[in-house]
Amino acid sequence: MNDGTGAGAPAEGGTMNDRLARVTLMRLAEPDDAVMGRLVAACGPEAAVAQVREGRLDPGIVRWFESVRHRSAAGPGETAERLGRILAAWRARLAEADPVRDLAEGERAGARLIVPGDSEWPTQLDDLGESRPYALWLRGEANLRFSCVRSVAIVGSRAATPYGTHVAAEFGAGLSERGHGVVSGGAYGVDGAAHRGALACDAPTVAVLACGADITYPSAHHDLFAAVRGQGLLVSECPMGVRPTRPRFLVRNRLIAALARGTVVVEAAVRSGALNTAGHAAALNRLLAAVPGPVTSDTSAGCHRLIRQGMAACVTTPAEMAELVGVIGDELAPEPRGPVVPRDLLGPQTRRVLEAVPARTGTGPATIAVAAGVDIETVLSCLGALAAAGYVERVPRGWRLRPGGSADRT
Amino acid sequence: MNDGTGAGAPAEGGTMNDRLARVTLMRLAEPDDAVMGRLVAACGPEAAVAQVREGRLDPGIVRWFESVRHRSAAGPGETAERLGRILAAWRARLAEADPVRDLAEGERAGARLIVPGDSEWPTQLDDLGESRPYALWLRGEANLRFSCVRSVAIVGSRAATPYGTHVAAEFGAGLSERGHGVVSGGAYGVDGAAHRGALACDAPTVAVLACGADITYPSAHHDLFAAVRGQGLLVSECPMGVRPTRPRFLVRNRLIAALARGTVVVEAAVRSGALNTAGHAAALNRLLAAVPGPVTSDTSAGCHRLIRQGMAACVTTPAEMAELVGVIGDELAPEPRGPVVPRDLLGPQTRRVLEAVPARTGTGPATIAVAAGVDIETVLSCLGALAAAGYVERVPRGWRLRPGGSADRT
Repeated sequence: MNDGTGAGAPAEGGTMNDRLARVTLMRLAEPDDAVMGRLVAACGPEAAVAQVREGRLDPGIVRWFESVRHRSAAGPGETAERLGRILAAWRARLAEADPVRDLAEGERAGARLIVPGDSEWPTQLDDLGESRPYALWLRGEANLRFSCVRSVAIVGSRAATPYGTHVAAEFGAGLSERGHGVVSGGAYGVDGAAHRGALACDAPTVAVLACGADITYPSAHHDLFAAVRGQGLLVSECPMGVRPTRPRFLVRNRLIAALARGTVVVEAAVRSGALNTAGHAAALNRLLAAVPGPVTSDTSAGCHRLIRQGMAACVTTPAEMAELVGVIGDELAPEPRGPVVPRDLLGPQTRRVLEAVPARTGTGPATIAVAAGVDIETVLSCLGALAAAGYVERVPRGWRLRPGGSADRT
Repeated sequence: MNDGTGAGAPAEGGTMNDRLARVTLMRLAEPDDAVMGRLVAACGPEAAVAQVREGRLDPGIVRWFESVRHRSAAGPGETAERLGRILAAWRARLAEADPVRDLAEGERAGARLIVPGDSEWPTQLDDLGESRPYALWLRGEANLRFSCVRSVAIVGSRAATPYGTHVAAEFGAGLSERGHGVVSGGAYGVDGAAHRGALACDAPTVAVLACGADITYPSAHHDLFAAVRGQGLLVSECPMGVRPTRPRFLVRNRLIAALARGTVVVEAAVRSGALNTAGHAAALNRLLAAVPGPVTSDTSAGCHRLIRQGMAACVTTPAEMAELVGVIGDELAPEPRGPVVPRDLLGPQTRRVLEAVPARTGTGPATIAVAAGVDIETVLSCLGALAAAGYVERVPRGWRLRPGGSADRT
């Protein structure tokens, strides 16, 4: 990428200097920082760190920042001051950053670092453009790239109802059975239930955290995270030891949406963070679906809004979700159909005759013909067929329904 | 209408002969009988009865019947025989028909007959074309035309769940409050709950029956039907005393769909009769909506299928349904929104600073600046604003969240 910012981006790859620079960036700037994202995209991670250290940003970045600020009607002095403050904040963090220590700390926690260009790097993250994470820390047995190449993000409310956790587990299990990896966060409610559904099928599952990969948040998910590590992966773009904060949850959501081929919102109130993930999925042109629920439940209102706005497809089963994200025509979900009852197999005229046959007292064919509105010959032939099939029987006064026979009136 | 069948349809109106002929037709042929519908549309009700009596149908009808049968690959002899049987069935019923007695019987039951051309006739029924009812019997205080000019059909399963009856009653009440008449059947479950919702709002409600207007089916709805008569209407296209049959329920559904401006399916399994009503509504270009429900409930599967197929809009409140059927822009439903919490009113940078302030032990502004990733001056100005708003407080070792303050971490 070279857009006149002065320095072409270097080739990607996992050189040690590139890795050290990316680990430094994870400490310097918050994930999804617009200015740092631009800087790294334009100059590469090593040059970005060097420019922060020297306190002098690439002129192309300064011009870009001025043009962006200009659109928001800020004066030139104000803009220079703002960029100076951003740089000062990065430099204060740089003074405390120690990438070698961070790498050692990750290794001690049993984590591995992957960067763009590594074989395990999921290239679908490149769709994030300048918001792409600087690097990722992984903990677990699975391969991130393989786990996500055909995957579905299952997201929803932390304060899920029993309905929501039930559906999330069903989707986690049902999509795993169909060979789709599960991606979610690490929270209570829908996230946890989705992972448990996948784990129950011995399938890999990916939990993307808003804190360091060594932090168990919420702490009651200690056993769940251990199981995810054993069979799948914990993923984080934060350095070890970093605590989750509200903004980090929001920027984390873009990773969940980007990793998976499609996102399904299981249960979400109208202010749920899951709708933020849904927004990322839509912005990334990923497939978006929502599971309906009772209209009396506030935790389904967000799902219904997505469906009503035409943003999300309405899906009710894992099979329907698999059909949505699968290869066209390859994984068609069965249409829901009711049972076929014997009565369905009767022709329309025979059915009319059957309806006209009384339940208890026998009636003659002429009366049945008038009641059914068909002629007497048709009535006689239909009665014969109906008697043979066990629907009606002949009694002294004519014909009646056979008690306990095939003609179920309900 | 004159389509080469030989006789032009006479002008519509409520002459006594027209009324007697229509009452006779109600006895002769089943509602929605394709051949009779064609005959009446082409020749008018009086000529239709006369032709049946004489046993000689209009040559145009015979030619039309031959052309229809020809398409189904029936031979000429077979076709003539088939038409002969239809005529024989009508004549057998004609022999027992007595329109004067029928009119007297209706009057005794407190019913009134309306026919096309009457001021109370709802002209939207004309959209049914040749399936238009021959006439209607009404029992009740309301005016059918006025009750239905702005109305919604609320339909769904007889075997509704408590969720379904709750939602049906809410829609019955909520649409009534917004000035929309309610139209439904007379069954248990969704039908009954919809009427009860309207009745609770002292609004007219219309129950279209699949039996004579003097029959209470199901019989446990005796009190409900009495209340509907008192405030709204019982409607039937069948003569007095006719029992409900399965085919009559299906043809009855076309009247419910045609009377209302839109139909909402509250709860329906994939084999529910309510989906038949939905199909009529779609065929008549009426607005069609469905209420989602738990995906774990079979009685919502039909609703979800309609939504998934794009046949029905997803509606979750009476206000949304009113918006759908109302005049464009006149009745906009409110977007569901969550509560605004004080934290929302903070700017993004102030929020980042707030997230970096520890809960218990006080911390200095420099540490907070590094944690938040903003410069120290910004931190100081944000901390001042946050303290003034009650979010944070100064303690000996720096700043911390104010216990029980506005910063709710959940």
